[in-house]
Amino acid sequence: MIEPIITLLTDFGEKDPYVGIMKGVILSICPNAKMIDLSHEIEQHNIRDGAFFLKSVTNYYPKGAIHLVVVDPGVGSERGALIIKTKKFYFVGPDNGILSLAAKIDGIEKVVKIKNTTYFLKPISNTFHGRDIFAPVAGHLAQNEPIENFGTEIKDWIQLEIPSITKNEMIQAEIIHIDRFGNVITNIPRTFLTDFVGKELEIKIEKKIHTIPFCTTYSQVQVGNILGIIGSSDYLEISINQGNAAERLGVQVEDQIDIRLIVS
Amino acid sequence: MIEPIITLLTDFGEKDPYVGIMKGVILSICPNAKMIDLSHEIEQHNIRDGAFFLKSVTNYYPKGAIHLVVVDPGVGSERGALIIKTKKFYFVGPDNGILSLAAKIDGIEKVVKIKNTTYFLKPISNTFHGRDIFAPVAGHLAQNEPIENFGTEIKDWIQLEIPSITKNEMIQAEIIHIDRFGNVITNIPRTFLTDFVGKELEIKIEKKIHTIPFCTTYSQVQVGNILGIIGSSDYLEISINQGNAAERLGVQVEDQIDIRLIVS
Amino acid sequence: MIEPIITLLTDFGEKDPYVGIMKGVILSICPNAKMIDLSHEIEQHNIRDGAFFLKSVTNYYPKGAIHLVVVDPGVGSERGALIIKTKKFYFVGPDNGILSLAAKIDGIEKVVKIKNTTYFLKPISNTFHGRDIFAPVAGHLAQNEPIENFGTEIKDWIQLEIPSITKNEMIQAEIIHIDRFGNVITNIPRTFLTDFVGKELEIKIEKKIHTIPFCTTYSQVQVGNILGIIGSSDYLEISINQGNAAERLGVQVEDQIDIRLIVS
Repeated sequence: MIEPIITLLTDFGEKDPYVGIMKGVILSICPNAKMIDLSHEIEQHNIRDGAFFLKSVTNYYPKGAIHLVVVDPGVGSERGALIIKTKKFYFVGPDNGILSLAAKIDGIEKVVKIKNTTYFLKPISNTFHGRDIFAPVAGHLAQNEPIENFGTEIKDWIQLEIPSITKNEMIQAEIIHIDRFGNVITNIPRTFLTDFVGKELEIKIEKKIHTIPFCTTYSQVQVGNILGIIGSSDYLEISINQGNAAERLGVQVEDQIDIRLIVS
Repeated sequence: MIEPIITLLTDFGEKDPYVGIMKGVILSICPNAKMIDLSHEIEQHNIRDGAFFLKSVTNYYPKGAIHLVVVDPGVGSERGALIIKTKKFYFVGPDNGILSLAAKIDGIEKVVKIKNTTYFLKPISNTFHGRDIFAPVAGHLAQNEPIENFGTEIKDWIQLEIPSITKNEMIQAEIIHIDRFGNVITNIPRTFLTDFVGKELEIKIEKKIHTIPFCTTYSQVQVGNILGIIGSSDYLEISINQGNAAERLGVQVEDQIDIRLIVS
Repeated sequence: MIEPIITLLTDFGEKDPYVGIMKGVILSICPNAKMIDLSHEIEQHNIRDGAFFLKSVTNYYPKGAIHLVVVDPGVGSERGALIIKTKKFYFVGPDNGILSLAAKIDGIEKVVKIKNTTYFLKPISNTFHGRDIFAPVAGHLAQNEPIENFGTEIKDWIQLEIPSITKNEMIQAEIIHIDRFGNVITNIPRTFLTDFVGKELEIKIEKKIHTIPFCTTYSQVQVGNILGIIGSSDYLEISINQGNAAERLGVQVEDQIDIRLIVS
């Protein structure tokens, strides 16, 4: 028998008991849940960061997976709690946009506002809905409880947008993530750029212009050299072969980056 | 068939091979063990920190779970090795107090000093009993080996106490944990305070007095403002709505904090 | 039924989506895979560090385990991709030496260069073979796909060597790892030293000579004192009882360390 998959994504870190508590709650409801940590290192309260992370990962999971996400700066306030059913998955988390990018990619079928306190851990705290609401709801979903039992369908919920790109003489883009290797991931999708591989890119960061080759592998430049490349998430990345591009360029997430394709 | 649950709590960190080794040892004995990482980021050799962590988490696990804990500054010395059977769980770890707070909460039924070397990995090192003693004992427990087979019952073992509170004009309390969000968790339990929600608290830290509201949710104050709240572990916490209270107050674990309830 | 074990060792860290993506790919191919994180905190691109880590851990796993390793600075270049079958295990990863120390210890039976694109995720990126090649190959191996189906046997692949020891008047050794506790792990194996336990060691680091006792447990010296000890991985370690030896000695991985056994 296949065990139900529950992935966990939070901003709880590894030093506090919160994640271990949520896993205990889930196992007490669904003892054969297969729990997979996506990350607990989302920057604290950073909904945008968490939403991008989730969007990069979920589609690689098998049909039926339950994606449980707790990045919840508004815990205890009036913000709602959601289950989103998409073509392949269930998403469970706060109604603050965190689930929206990933859910839209898969194709939304139904959004339910969680209301039925039968499924909650009691007493319900005002500081840790990951334990009291989201983990138990995910556990009961994994036990095949129908989504309708948890609350009522809603149409109005919070959705994030991927920052848009302005395309004038230069493409005005934004840095959406910097990974552990210092790869600078922009919001320019592959479709904008595929005709230009092998050409050069001019990138402008804080008035400084860099001309860099647009490659298909890191090893097309010498170790230590900078390049542009379509990364594994299908966005333009600025990288250094075996080096840290973010550090060398002195950039951060949400910085603007202007890019011109040089067609000579 | 339900897989036996073994939770792991250590101070081994994520960069060294120690945790991966322990998991290999467990799986070699009990191939269907369901291993759950509580944390490996307990401060090195900090028994008190580990004991508080364990106490916050274990009760959320289903009956029968085995809680394996290795924070073991005395490894290789004369300190003993324990299995504690409680109402719902088994605890396995060194006899240095690390298991005591969690075990007491659940209700202790039997404490066995581990002696039977049949269950150990050999040769037994003097530096890594997590691998040679505790992991194999947990694995054999998960295979339903009776606790009596591992050693002899004892009555005298090391027990920690939660630091006590002095209640004069002010409550003299202590900071027992600071979490990733900067929430300052004190040793003042809910029962001391429930009548006072909605009132104000006067908190005194190193001669400086702060008057803060005593709330039931973070969102009762503006983002960036300080508050007192009964946290998810049922102790008084000093927090900032979407901010870091420990940083703003300049406090650390084990600092004293004096609190007066203002009833006006 | 026993679930197939896949261990994961990478330099991807905990903040990026890469590990979660690989796990999704594996579960989509082999839904009952039991995935065990060895570590994702190998220093970026540090093949030597990863190879030592792997060698310390794998032998504790049960027969049949698949060890999936992605430390891959040459991703997208001409470097090959390997499956190594050893007496007890399968190893999957890039042909850059990362698998070699662990595989040799267990006893190599066959090395296959992965070529059959049928098993890859498509389109194959040039930046993330962990997702597109290594994770799917591990997943299909876990589904009992025969190793011959993935490519052709090769004899010529990259193998690391453990740095050798020169034994003159002093043993000229090297620091191969420093763990979270500050234990300084050298490349001097137990077999070099067993006759000398109880004697003293003279250790020379950057012209400074320290004379320290050679102990069998940390507790043979006072808390805070330095000692030599055969560590859990059967190499000589320089440690401080409940303290950080690497910090006190000011040493780093790959530093030279000269050692003389004092037989008086």
